[in-house]
Amino acid sequence: MKDSREALELFLSTLNPETIVETEEIPVHEAPGRITGEPIFAKISSPLFPAAAMDGIAVFAQDTYGATERSPKRLKAGQEAMWVNTGQVMPEGKNAVIMVEKLHQVDEETIEILSAAFPWQNVRKVGEDFVATELLFPQKHRIRALDLGTLIEGGIFRLKVRRRPRVRVIPTGSELVHYTSLAQPFDLKKGEIIESNSLVIASLITECGADPVIEDIVEDKSENIRASLLNAVSSDAELVIIIAGSSAGKRDFTAQVIEDIGELLVHGVTIMPGKPTILGRIKEKPVVGIPGYPVSAYIAFHEFVKPYLLRLQGLIAPKEHSVKVVAGRDMPSKLGIEEFIRVNIGSVGDRLVAIPLPRGAGLLTSLSRAEGIIKTSSRSEGIAAGEEVDATLLVEPEEIANTVMIIGSHDIALDILSDELRKTGSPIRVASGNVGSLGGLMALRRGTAHVAGSHLLDTETGTYNISYIQKYLQGVPVHVFHLVLREQGLIVQKHNPKGIRGIEDLTRDDVVFINRQLGSGTRILLDYKLHELGIDAGKITGYENEEYTHMNVAVAVLSGMADAGLGILAAARALDLDFIPLLTEQYDLVIPSSFVDDPKIKSLLEAIRSEGFKERIKGLGGYNPENSGNVWKVI
Amino acid sequence: MKDSREALELFLSTLNPETIVETEEIPVHEAPGRITGEPIFAKISSPLFPAAAMDGIAVFAQDTYGATERSPKRLKAGQEAMWVNTGQVMPEGKNAVIMVEKLHQVDEETIEILSAAFPWQNVRKVGEDFVATELLFPQKHRIRALDLGTLIEGGIFRLKVRRRPRVRVIPTGSELVHYTSLAQPFDLKKGEIIESNSLVIASLITECGADPVIEDIVEDKSENIRASLLNAVSSDAELVIIIAGSSAGKRDFTAQVIEDIGELLVHGVTIMPGKPTILGRIKEKPVVGIPGYPVSAYIAFHEFVKPYLLRLQGLIAPKEHSVKVVAGRDMPSKLGIEEFIRVNIGSVGDRLVAIPLPRGAGLLTSLSRAEGIIKTSSRSEGIAAGEEVDATLLVEPEEIANTVMIIGSHDIALDILSDELRKTGSPIRVASGNVGSLGGLMALRRGTAHVAGSHLLDTETGTYNISYIQKYLQGVPVHVFHLVLREQGLIVQKHNPKGIRGIEDLTRDDVVFINRQLGSGTRILLDYKLHELGIDAGKITGYENEEYTHMNVAVAVLSGMADAGLGILAAARALDLDFIPLLTEQYDLVIPSSFVDDPKIKSLLEAIRSEGFKERIKGLGGYNPENSGNVWKVI
Repeated sequence: MKDSREALELFLSTLNPETIVETEEIPVHEAPGRITGEPIFAKISSPLFPAAAMDGIAVFAQDTYGATERSPKRLKAGQEAMWVNTGQVMPEGKNAVIMVEKLHQVDEETIEILSAAFPWQNVRKVGEDFVATELLFPQKHRIRALDLGTLIEGGIFRLKVRRRPRVRVIPTGSELVHYTSLAQPFDLKKGEIIESNSLVIASLITECGADPVIEDIVEDKSENIRASLLNAVSSDAELVIIIAGSSAGKRDFTAQVIEDIGELLVHGVTIMPGKPTILGRIKEKPVVGIPGYPVSAYIAFHEFVKPYLLRLQGLIAPKEHSVKVVAGRDMPSKLGIEEFIRVNIGSVGDRLVAIPLPRGAGLLTSLSRAEGIIKTSSRSEGIAAGEEVDATLLVEPEEIANTVMIIGSHDIALDILSDELRKTGSPIRVASGNVGSLGGLMALRRGTAHVAGSHLLDTETGTYNISYIQKYLQGVPVHVFHLVLREQGLIVQKHNPKGIRGIEDLTRDDVVFINRQLGSGTRILLDYKLHELGIDAGKITGYENEEYTHMNVAVAVLSGMADAGLGILAAARALDLDFIPLLTEQYDLVIPSSFVDDPKIKSLLEAIRSEGFKERIKGLGGYNPENSGNVWKVI
Repeated sequence: MKDSREALELFLSTLNPETIVETEEIPVHEAPGRITGEPIFAKISSPLFPAAAMDGIAVFAQDTYGATERSPKRLKAGQEAMWVNTGQVMPEGKNAVIMVEKLHQVDEETIEILSAAFPWQNVRKVGEDFVATELLFPQKHRIRALDLGTLIEGGIFRLKVRRRPRVRVIPTGSELVHYTSLAQPFDLKKGEIIESNSLVIASLITECGADPVIEDIVEDKSENIRASLLNAVSSDAELVIIIAGSSAGKRDFTAQVIEDIGELLVHGVTIMPGKPTILGRIKEKPVVGIPGYPVSAYIAFHEFVKPYLLRLQGLIAPKEHSVKVVAGRDMPSKLGIEEFIRVNIGSVGDRLVAIPLPRGAGLLTSLSRAEGIIKTSSRSEGIAAGEEVDATLLVEPEEIANTVMIIGSHDIALDILSDELRKTGSPIRVASGNVGSLGGLMALRRGTAHVAGSHLLDTETGTYNISYIQKYLQGVPVHVFHLVLREQGLIVQKHNPKGIRGIEDLTRDDVVFINRQLGSGTRILLDYKLHELGIDAGKITGYENEEYTHMNVAVAVLSGMADAGLGILAAARALDLDFIPLLTEQYDLVIPSSFVDDPKIKSLLEAIRSEGFKERIKGLGGYNPENSGNVWKVI
């Protein structure tokens, strides 16, 4: 096991310092985005001829001497005075321009001037911008759209740029199927997995200025992997990537095959995700074994493939855009491991706050929903809440400023809200963390969220949220806005095969329950109902199994892991399950009063109050949006 | 004349708030870079089936109960224990995975375990990442490479994205020729101008996610412009851009034509460059008249076309990357005008310093060599040296940190140095400002440069630079490094038709001289020589005409503006002119001692000392690099 730096250095050291893809000549209009392969010197000066710098008449300065306001001078149009436009080449024998505003056209043939011109007045001299032989761009310059003009004016009609490196990508796995072979996702057979890594990797390769070729999926057989690798390293590609098969499992032959037919440089890197990365060489050609978990694949690409591809083009991997963030929660990590923690980042008050997303290497949304990544040091045991650290950005810096952090209880209405905001053209990005209602209030207290989604029933008074806010947010003035009223009930299998009618049935021997986590409003609701009905929770099979969202409860029921769970109608409907309504509850957004005038919070509230949002919410079923966006309490 | 904000608002207001290009359906692997046209909800959960989270054996947890280290349990491979790989779908009837590291394979058919598994241990549950119906991306999301995985795993094989807007670009100007019609730049006839704006604009359009079509060049005739505009607005394009012809000259018909056949919204904006911008509509189709000067064209595009194209896609123009910079010099600007001042930016000491580049709207290199643009307010008369202002970046933020600011005298060796650094793989960017030797020393004193290029002859001692440094840089400890020894002499026409032999001939009636600016080392040299020879400068025709670089002096001679100028051999050679050597002078780099250990300065010095640099310098002619990079004095 090597650390990421050692591993990268070892891998890059296989490159001869002079190794760099050769150049190719292209026409100049294809140049944007390409890397100059040699220094570009101007072939001609710009301007190439003296040119008018103003609209007016071109004159020979000496012809105008003596002209004053008192004794204007008349020039013969077409001879002593030639009309010129800005940018136009100066007529032969003329060396000055008099602006159109400073002359008087007497008739078609006569122009009167009120002052003399001096030589080269309002004339762009040859080479004013640059002169022939001058360096326009050094080599290894990435040509931008705006550079095109300089190149063309410099007479550079064709130029040498670095050829795009070529990469072969080999997906492996007997269970993989290409999405293109499926008419629709539901055609996926049990045991099959959709191949997506090679497409992500190919797209990342393109972003690095290289050209990917994706090979056919290779079965998990040693001989197939060997044949495929031998074939790929014999191709014209500069780099071969083989995906998955890099873990230590029964069928992971990649490392063994590379060792057999080439040189295994690195097998395992102390990074997480991405640990099973393989770096090696076969027949002098570099081979990277990318782990199969999608987040691992992304990290391994980023750490090893990207720097290699840039080096092949003579470039150095640029530093990522990074920002200083304050950890909104503890983020423990293992000593000896560099961990890449995906985080939501939002500007809360006067600081950028980072909240970790779930860490599993198989969780694609932990990348696609993240605003950034925090890399821990292998010498640390993680990051403490409140600590300031660097986070590299996965979004534009501006999007951070536009991110509203909604932490707390999960509700599908928040997804709809996120989309509704975008629909109206708002740049606001909703980042929602699902930690339960109580977790949301705690986040507000720590100053790590803008908004908490909460539906905490006070079992003594029958009201929602207020007593909890008074207890947990003492000293933090907040506005409480209604988001929705929604139906909670039991989500059960389609057609309710177990004939469950209510909470009472959960203690039945043949019924497995799936619970929500402690601190969630739904859990409080359940415990309250159990207490009310005098039911012993210990008698409910599955009471100790917890899920974090309504939808995951519904999925647990759908997949047969459980027979019933408490949740909202919309979740049951979404997965076509049955639903036994129990009660209507109030789901609120709690917002610190200091944020209420923040433009992004205002936009959020506007969207909640819009008819568009209310209509979509109604369409989900089980929701009543009549009070959506109304202030309920100011505490 | 409107200000830029008014003009933009008026222009955008012609768009119905709901106007947005329609969507089109594309296969998912083409999605990166595109904008979602609708919210994307997962069609299937991820994972879709319970899957192994570890490599090992899949078991039914209940089968393992009772296993301990003391009393291991044996399972039948292939029946009670099924080998599984990470990510593989769980076999029917199994609900837990025991890691490969925690089991012992007794023989082919028997596996021994030392502890019991609990249900769902090491199993990725259905929907662990996301569940069917969950929002994956809101509409108007720009899809990144890393989003592809989420889409495919969510069963999104085709998706609706915004169609790329279509733009017609019409270049106008009778003098324009396409570069593709010239075999080589020298084929350009006098009076002709290479058309480059349309290619730059087209490339910028592509960067905005739209598709450009460049029309044929249109002659400067009212009827041709009218026909071409009518044709373009009848096309399927959402926007028509007509380049040049937007100033007030004799042949500028665009505004008039738009007024005749459509609606002229804006003719003239209080921005500089970019003032003659035209915004209008013809047959409900937006038309932008872009000025012909290349920098004006870029600014006008950026201010008006880009926001419009983004709005057409339902997006808001993002804020540019900007940084706080300290003005290194006064940058006056006109009241009532928003000026876009192109600047070099470097990190000098602990601040980012901005130095203005030349301002002409025709100077392409003022854009391509700039690191950023400072926009002045129309209510200010400019920016004072030392003032802190925002600069939007034209390069990656990181390039700023890698920029070495070399201010002072110009020498071609600096161009070579810039390229040599890139050649060795260094990320260093050399920004060189040509203000003469004395100007360079002043920049060091103000702390607005890293390095000053200087060749100031002390006429009393015959030594270079030292006495000037002692006088002008009192209290600033510096290291003085040799860059080159170089020949100065008279640059004269090819074959020296006027038979010039030395300084003495400059007073001849038939000789026109071209001078360098005050404060330049070359000027000091000239004045010293004149004094030595007892020549009255007033007797030299052209003594008052100044150029800022050796190359511009050479160009002035080449173009016939002058017969002779003082400069270096390399400049004469580059333009194939004759040269009359006068003396060898010393050109040094003066570097504040506090910067000498800065890694970028170290790289710079290394490059200067390299054989590669010295060889290239020798090749230029008139240079002696034997002491290049040696410390000459520490003061």
